[in-house]
Amino acid sequence: MNLQLYGFWRSIASFRVRVALKLKDLPFEEIPVDILSGEQFKPDYDAVNAERVVPTLVHGEHRLFQSLAIIEYLDDIVPEPRLLPADPVDRAYARSLALVTIADAHPLVTPRVRNHLVEMFGADAPTIGAWATHWTIEGLATYERLLARRPPAPFALGQQVGLADISVAGQVVGAHFLKLDLASFPAVRRLADLCFAMPAFATSHPFEQPGHKAATSR
Amino acid sequence: MNLQLYGFWRSIASFRVRVALKLKDLPFEEIPVDILSGEQFKPDYDAVNAERVVPTLVHGEHRLFQSLAIIEYLDDIVPEPRLLPADPVDRAYARSLALVTIADAHPLVTPRVRNHLVEMFGADAPTIGAWATHWTIEGLATYERLLARRPPAPFALGQQVGLADISVAGQVVGAHFLKLDLASFPAVRRLADLCFAMPAFATSHPFEQPGHKAATSR
Repeated sequence: MNLQLYGFWRSIASFRVRVALKLKDLPFEEIPVDILSGEQFKPDYDAVNAERVVPTLVHGEHRLFQSLAIIEYLDDIVPEPRLLPADPVDRAYARSLALVTIADAHPLVTPRVRNHLVEMFGADAPTIGAWATHWTIEGLATYERLLARRPPAPFALGQQVGLADISVAGQVVGAHFLKLDLASFPAVRRLADLCFAMPAFATSHPFEQPGHKAATSR
Repeated sequence: MNLQLYGFWRSIASFRVRVALKLKDLPFEEIPVDILSGEQFKPDYDAVNAERVVPTLVHGEHRLFQSLAIIEYLDDIVPEPRLLPADPVDRAYARSLALVTIADAHPLVTPRVRNHLVEMFGADAPTIGAWATHWTIEGLATYERLLARRPPAPFALGQQVGLADISVAGQVVGAHFLKLDLASFPAVRRLADLCFAMPAFATSHPFEQPGHKAATSR
């Protein structure tokens, strides 16, 4: 299977897809798109993905975008190991957990939003940091409440690691960017520790990507 | 099937689930949760949905949240009429289109974000309106580009109305709130017109809900 991932080292959505590909043991080539400098808006990338966001997964003639849609696609075409459970109620719960970050917490801290806060309110770097911290903590607190009601055993849906765990781990990556203390979110921290002990997660972390190393050595 | 929907007249996510239930001809009782006055944060509702957002669908002992997860669940348990296509590539495209609004455009204009702009920047009503207009237009423009590359025929995925159309229509509902002119988005407008000609969409529109009528007659 010939797979290419247009992604960015710092993108949490790219992280999610990277983990899914690695959990399914699917080799892929990653093509960097620097969303901080606006490469996603250039005609070359617009031709790949008209939404002008990362990630995009290229599978033969197909170009798939939006991390959740890509992960579901991978589960549709390569069913084992399953990233979504088979039972409809459990599938819904896995998707709900995923959407806590994908549809609620993460969209609020993306570069385009941070840039728009600067344009519209003249927000300075500490203010942008406070904004990102507020929404990242909101997401972590939501996950903590949810995991308290249905404790991971050991993963969010049970024995099998999957979409929900990838999503919680992505929210924790956001906390890593901000150097947040996770002491107030013990269930989230335990689940993330379990995930990041696995190579698929550890090697997908933004700080482990070549682009991060290049950016921090500049 | 005994179904209850915790929703709010103005909530675009509630709109999406209402349409899905009606397309599948599933009767439901709607229980209003006033997210403008903060009812979602009260203990009664927190017990229903620990994320403290609407909508929540109650199906027997199951409580499902996040509009996309609910719609997928409905498609899993009541497969006909299908809201997602059977082909994996088409399924991915339907989900990608849905996530343009669910994961990118809509999260930025929810009440909790508008409230936080007031708290953090002292934003006044015209500024909040400009913020909402910016992100609503971003979403519409993205859909216009996507629909230009794969024109609806007549719906986004072909002959069968479904998740993607529901999501585009929800973005158009956001434009209705702001009284935006859709002339720059002809493909979006044509698709939305087709959708809102169907009773499932028309009767689900926020402006047709009892809560809207009560709010505007105050």
